[in-house]
Amino acid sequence: MLRRMSSFSGQKLAAVVKELENFAPAKLAEKWDNVGLLIEPHKEKPIKKILLTNDLTEPVMGEALDKNIDLIISYHPPIFRPLTRITQSHWKERVVAACLANNVALYSPHTAWDKTFGGVNDWLSKAVAIQSIRPLEPELGAPPGTGSGRFIETDQTIRQLVESLQKHIQTSVHLALAVSHTPDTVIKTVGICAGSGGSLLKGFEADLIITGEMSHHELLEFNHNDTTVLLCNHSNSERGFLKEFSPKLSDLLKGECEILVSEKDKDPLVTVTNADTICDLSQKAQQ
Amino acid sequence: MLRRMSSFSGQKLAAVVKELENFAPAKLAEKWDNVGLLIEPHKEKPIKKILLTNDLTEPVMGEALDKNIDLIISYHPPIFRPLTRITQSHWKERVVAACLANNVALYSPHTAWDKTFGGVNDWLSKAVAIQSIRPLEPELGAPPGTGSGRFIETDQTIRQLVESLQKHIQTSVHLALAVSHTPDTVIKTVGICAGSGGSLLKGFEADLIITGEMSHHELLEFNHNDTTVLLCNHSNSERGFLKEFSPKLSDLLKGECEILVSEKDKDPLVTVTNADTICDLSQKAQQ
Amino acid sequence: MLRRMSSFSGQKLAAVVKELENFAPAKLAEKWDNVGLLIEPHKEKPIKKILLTNDLTEPVMGEALDKNIDLIISYHPPIFRPLTRITQSHWKERVVAACLANNVALYSPHTAWDKTFGGVNDWLSKAVAIQSIRPLEPELGAPPGTGSGRFIETDQTIRQLVESLQKHIQTSVHLALAVSHTPDTVIKTVGICAGSGGSLLKGFEADLIITGEMSHHELLEFNHNDTTVLLCNHSNSERGFLKEFSPKLSDLLKGECEILVSEKDKDPLVTVTNADTICDLSQKAQQ
Amino acid sequence: MLRRMSSFSGQKLAAVVKELENFAPAKLAEKWDNVGLLIEPHKEKPIKKILLTNDLTEPVMGEALDKNIDLIISYHPPIFRPLTRITQSHWKERVVAACLANNVALYSPHTAWDKTFGGVNDWLSKAVAIQSIRPLEPELGAPPGTGSGRFIETDQTIRQLVESLQKHIQTSVHLALAVSHTPDTVIKTVGICAGSGGSLLKGFEADLIITGEMSHHELLEFNHNDTTVLLCNHSNSERGFLKEFSPKLSDLLKGECEILVSEKDKDPLVTVTNADTICDLSQKAQQ
Amino acid sequence: MLRRMSSFSGQKLAAVVKELENFAPAKLAEKWDNVGLLIEPHKEKPIKKILLTNDLTEPVMGEALDKNIDLIISYHPPIFRPLTRITQSHWKERVVAACLANNVALYSPHTAWDKTFGGVNDWLSKAVAIQSIRPLEPELGAPPGTGSGRFIETDQTIRQLVESLQKHIQTSVHLALAVSHTPDTVIKTVGICAGSGGSLLKGFEADLIITGEMSHHELLEFNHNDTTVLLCNHSNSERGFLKEFSPKLSDLLKGECEILVSEKDKDPLVTVTNADTICDLSQKAQQ
Amino acid sequence: MLRRMSSFSGQKLAAVVKELENFAPAKLAEKWDNVGLLIEPHKEKPIKKILLTNDLTEPVMGEALDKNIDLIISYHPPIFRPLTRITQSHWKERVVAACLANNVALYSPHTAWDKTFGGVNDWLSKAVAIQSIRPLEPELGAPPGTGSGRFIETDQTIRQLVESLQKHIQTSVHLALAVSHTPDTVIKTVGICAGSGGSLLKGFEADLIITGEMSHHELLEFNHNDTTVLLCNHSNSERGFLKEFSPKLSDLLKGECEILVSEKDKDPLVTVTNADTICDLSQKAQQ
Repeated sequence: MLRRMSSFSGQKLAAVVKELENFAPAKLAEKWDNVGLLIEPHKEKPIKKILLTNDLTEPVMGEALDKNIDLIISYHPPIFRPLTRITQSHWKERVVAACLANNVALYSPHTAWDKTFGGVNDWLSKAVAIQSIRPLEPELGAPPGTGSGRFIETDQTIRQLVESLQKHIQTSVHLALAVSHTPDTVIKTVGICAGSGGSLLKGFEADLIITGEMSHHELLEFNHNDTTVLLCNHSNSERGFLKEFSPKLSDLLKGECEILVSEKDKDPLVTVTNADTICDLSQKAQQ
Repeated sequence: MLRRMSSFSGQKLAAVVKELENFAPAKLAEKWDNVGLLIEPHKEKPIKKILLTNDLTEPVMGEALDKNIDLIISYHPPIFRPLTRITQSHWKERVVAACLANNVALYSPHTAWDKTFGGVNDWLSKAVAIQSIRPLEPELGAPPGTGSGRFIETDQTIRQLVESLQKHIQTSVHLALAVSHTPDTVIKTVGICAGSGGSLLKGFEADLIITGEMSHHELLEFNHNDTTVLLCNHSNSERGFLKEFSPKLSDLLKGECEILVSEKDKDPLVTVTNADTICDLSQKAQQ
Repeated sequence: MLRRMSSFSGQKLAAVVKELENFAPAKLAEKWDNVGLLIEPHKEKPIKKILLTNDLTEPVMGEALDKNIDLIISYHPPIFRPLTRITQSHWKERVVAACLANNVALYSPHTAWDKTFGGVNDWLSKAVAIQSIRPLEPELGAPPGTGSGRFIETDQTIRQLVESLQKHIQTSVHLALAVSHTPDTVIKTVGICAGSGGSLLKGFEADLIITGEMSHHELLEFNHNDTTVLLCNHSNSERGFLKEFSPKLSDLLKGECEILVSEKDKDPLVTVTNADTICDLSQKAQQ
Repeated sequence: MLRRMSSFSGQKLAAVVKELENFAPAKLAEKWDNVGLLIEPHKEKPIKKILLTNDLTEPVMGEALDKNIDLIISYHPPIFRPLTRITQSHWKERVVAACLANNVALYSPHTAWDKTFGGVNDWLSKAVAIQSIRPLEPELGAPPGTGSGRFIETDQTIRQLVESLQKHIQTSVHLALAVSHTPDTVIKTVGICAGSGGSLLKGFEADLIITGEMSHHELLEFNHNDTTVLLCNHSNSERGFLKEFSPKLSDLLKGECEILVSEKDKDPLVTVTNADTICDLSQKAQQ
Repeated sequence: MLRRMSSFSGQKLAAVVKELENFAPAKLAEKWDNVGLLIEPHKEKPIKKILLTNDLTEPVMGEALDKNIDLIISYHPPIFRPLTRITQSHWKERVVAACLANNVALYSPHTAWDKTFGGVNDWLSKAVAIQSIRPLEPELGAPPGTGSGRFIETDQTIRQLVESLQKHIQTSVHLALAVSHTPDTVIKTVGICAGSGGSLLKGFEADLIITGEMSHHELLEFNHNDTTVLLCNHSNSERGFLKEFSPKLSDLLKGECEILVSEKDKDPLVTVTNADTICDLSQKAQQ
Repeated sequence: MLRRMSSFSGQKLAAVVKELENFAPAKLAEKWDNVGLLIEPHKEKPIKKILLTNDLTEPVMGEALDKNIDLIISYHPPIFRPLTRITQSHWKERVVAACLANNVALYSPHTAWDKTFGGVNDWLSKAVAIQSIRPLEPELGAPPGTGSGRFIETDQTIRQLVESLQKHIQTSVHLALAVSHTPDTVIKTVGICAGSGGSLLKGFEADLIITGEMSHHELLEFNHNDTTVLLCNHSNSERGFLKEFSPKLSDLLKGECEILVSEKDKDPLVTVTNADTICDLSQKAQQ
């Protein structure tokens, strides 16, 4: 009954989608991606409460139902491999069924948010002392600053960059030093790619790369080409953007919708550096 | 409120699915097909009312909701091309959303029913005075009589076969006479393929073929190879099986579920032979 | 000996082909098609007698030999799947051998006639009270009015369109009413595609479609998207053009060739609405 | 008129084909090949005169018409790339049209003759002093001695093999000496492949190879792997078999058909070793 | 000059390769892999000194030259993508050129060592208290215990497994807890896959998985299917085997060769948990 | 020791490569080709002695080592199929190992030299009395005269062309006369393609073609389309260019490098016209 008493007037789903598309048009997304409005409930109702999450895991789905959410915005698309059925035997089908059974809409922006100006890669770039910034692959026919990845000019040591990245993502980072570098090497150019950077950055030349995850053989390749790599874990290179986007979305919707950032959403991985710390770390993992 | 008063005790969805699989195992289906339990509601409830339909069109979906159906068995799978999203802009996505929003389960047997002994092709074969019958392509490792299509030995004229097929499917049929045949040619061998027979029957040799639909160039090929073809329209070669299956399913479920055959389900096509009849025919089309 | 006494002076084969190409250039045809001069006899002789047919079946081939035809123009290409041999065991190879053994040339226009202005689709369009007409897919670099399919603006009820189509093709038609339509729905836009319209018209939006044949699943798709479909049977959506083209071709050839339309050419299918009519219908099928 | 007076009674085409299939069944041929009866005339007539040729060039076709041939047996299939039309603009189409216009049948054995025991490869092997012989790739389920290529044990110098091959094919040969060989190297093992041996013989190990043609890079590969190669020119490695087969075929047909070996058939290439010889060589080319 | 004074008599390269193949035959390797003797010097010389490494990086190559190594055994194949040239512009080509210019042989076992009994996966399995062990995919026709991955039955808490894995690989580990697990959940079944486990383990069911690296989306999939994942970093899941193999190889070669384990070989990644530790960690990275 | 006393000062490898690229840029080469600097030694040293060869066979490699060559320029790329290993069991791997073990660089131009103005095809064209000349397929964005093959206008008999080609390549040629030609036919247009001309020249129309090698079926095709073909053997259509290029390269390198043309390089094939000549011919083959 609490739900009815919401002080938010809400907006039509179509109106919310329109604002999201204004921020980052679905057509920006990669061809292989699956973005936009992925689930539209059978019965129309006003969107009063919106939940932002990086991954729509089942704990996050539970949180959405507990909080009477009308629309979930999940950065990663919960439907990626197309569905041939919707049963209770796979978690992604359960999530889809839960949305439709409870009249919850689902929107996913993914690579459209990666490319848009002021999106996920621009947020990740703030870990660096930026002297200049531009997309790695500028998007043709889009506003300046739009495109895949970011290329930054800076003037910091690796030691400084590790520290400022730790602060920005608020957790530990993984360092793969170039064969020719030391922690005190001064970095002039940085490549940024939120998420899994291996395929976009292939063959890319910069002094240092910040991305979410990268395979062993990709790391050896970069380290032999004078490029140090900093890894955040995949979703830690993306999730922080949600806190930044939350008030922006509230404004775009003229304060008529309540915007929440998921409390259950987190990266699946924690690094356990010695046996003593596992209790604390894993308690964090259980939140 | 009527629903609660149902005199049927119902069965668990898993139990109903088990009986359907006993009748025609999903593994019988063609590799390219998408059969079995396609939609399983988020909340479990007993299956008291089951609706049988050939195609799950939106009129049939409306009928299912009006009649408080718990499980729809649709011969053709409503999800065939895999889904990347479930919105209100395409009828098949609307049907999926309607099922999930109303806790209606969906099961689809398709080619498993085609192949099983006592299934759709055996029903269609009853239009012929059978002297012997066997599958066109017997299924390895399955009970005798199981397989794709049927091959029948008989001894009837084309004229007789047209008449008996008209009675069996209760509507008009389409005749493509072989170059070497007349209506009084005696037919010794008949090939049966419910639905669209062109690819299964390619290169097949028989005096006459009964199927649902076939392309112009396939017809010319058969007619030049001494094979007359009788077409029923696609779903008219399949739908009649539902009336035969309905009491059989009731028995399999020990009378604990109510089984209905859709009143809205029909072939999309009606043949208009002259302008006078269009009113009547199209009224039928509107039922 | 009759042949020698023909009052027609005839033309060279190359000259006839040139006029046919002027009417509809082979380059207009689809890439997958096989059009133009398909058989050129070993010995040159003047073309005095031309037979027009929709399909070069063996009865039509027999007619051509009986009538001492010099050139057959078959709308559908008798050679479509390329030939690895020419024997007497397959009807299409027999037709090719018969042409070459009897010095009969063969020309096939197919999709070039579909696209050309004044061709097959324009003929089929005459079933509709046209307010405006244009190709569905205009051909780049070709004269106005050239292209695949036709898009027509009109203002008729479905009932009226069924009647006028019946008159135009002079046989029965098959009607698949849109979910949202009745026979009295007023149609504003019509899509035309002679032959098999499923792939060209996929996703196409109009109130009504007239084509030759279409599969069950294509019909359901259109009927759920507010589009009624009228089917003629494949070749009935094409054949009537030959009667219209016959005098036009005679003029193009300055009356120097005799132009016949085949009497044996017919659609393979007849609809048998009840048992009483089969004699009449099948007698027609035997002509 | 001469033709009528033939003293040969002839046989039915089907009977001749049956004998040819007994000698070398069509199913022996490679999957990619196109063998067997390739042209069957529209009107049946007895086969009295048969012409054997390696290639059915237009000079050979002219010879066949001049000599009133009823059946051409062409080792290489004149139809290889499937035909989409049969006009007068390409020589292979002209040949097909000439056969059909003149009621000449055409049979082609190609790789069936290569593989059969007593066929083309066995004929070519006779250039070697054979100690033992077996197919390179024996054919499963076929009589002993059947299969692709031949593997021979011998004990001759390269010098001797060049001389005996020259005598056997009655023209010059081309020699590519292995890096490790001299003309007096004794050869113990020989690989035989009539025609173009590169793909069958790839990776094959023998002291010497005899084939028709082979590319530069294939030769370098063999010469570095201790294998000397002798080339005959493609058709010179095949044609000689026809003279051997001619009386054998006459016997198979009980002397009821006249068997001719083409006088116009020849390898397209002649080697001009110095300017003086061109007149003679080219006169040979003009026969 | 030191080199000459070696007290090891050495063995022929072919003899060393034979022993390596006895331990783990090259044919065990995956089809896509590139294993066995990858570089064989132009001039033969005895193999006296062998260097074992997980990855043949340039620092390791430098170490090999400094130590006058005759044969490098690199677990990962330094030639994986085939080479079209060998220049100084890419590190892998430089490594190949350095080997050949200095007469250093190179052998790589990769997936042959993964599968063999007593190989890399068996070494990694020792982190677990094993009750029973068998390959995930046993190799047909190979000795028992041979195959891809390992499946272990045990009875330990996640907390215990993390600790014992840390001790076994002697560095930190990364933990992705299943949605249904806590650190005190008792694990009954463990899947082991050295290196990158995502593709081998896809769809695999166990309580816990130990592997080198795995992508974010693979982790979410496992964590929703009741499987906790422990990651070591790719090469830390493999490298420890070298120390175990070194004395075994010395024995296989009867003590005639000196076996060294590389001191420069290390995983490219170090985890930096806070800014204070970077000096120490990165110094380690510089060894 | 002789080597040190060389009177040539030499140039850096990069400088030599730059001059070779100026003459024929690597980007001119076909996409499927593998050209440019293929082997760069591990240790840098001045390039004083350069060996030109058409094919880098093992006899030529031996010659290079005997003569202390620093850089081999091999027209055909010795690495074409990419290498997965470099052992002593295949001759091409042995050649690569020999280069790297002896600090010999390797450069290969192949189709870049074919296309460049003044390259291999222009050299081969000199066998014809040229009235006009242009590339068969001009290269877009390249200097005039650059492109694949050459098209020449002339006015010579076939007899004259055979003679002048014999003189130009200094060995025998192979002649395939068009069906419509005699040795005295006057040739107006000539197509030139060094090497293997079949695929580039497919469908090409000219009175005569000069190329290195061509298959039997390609020859029959050209001979029926009024085109006579002259074959040189593959490498004889290319090798003569090296003698022409040698002084040109010396000039490009300002006389600072010694340029040799290989004495061991030769076409693998010799034609043996009768048994008497084999001694002489094969002695030539043994040089």
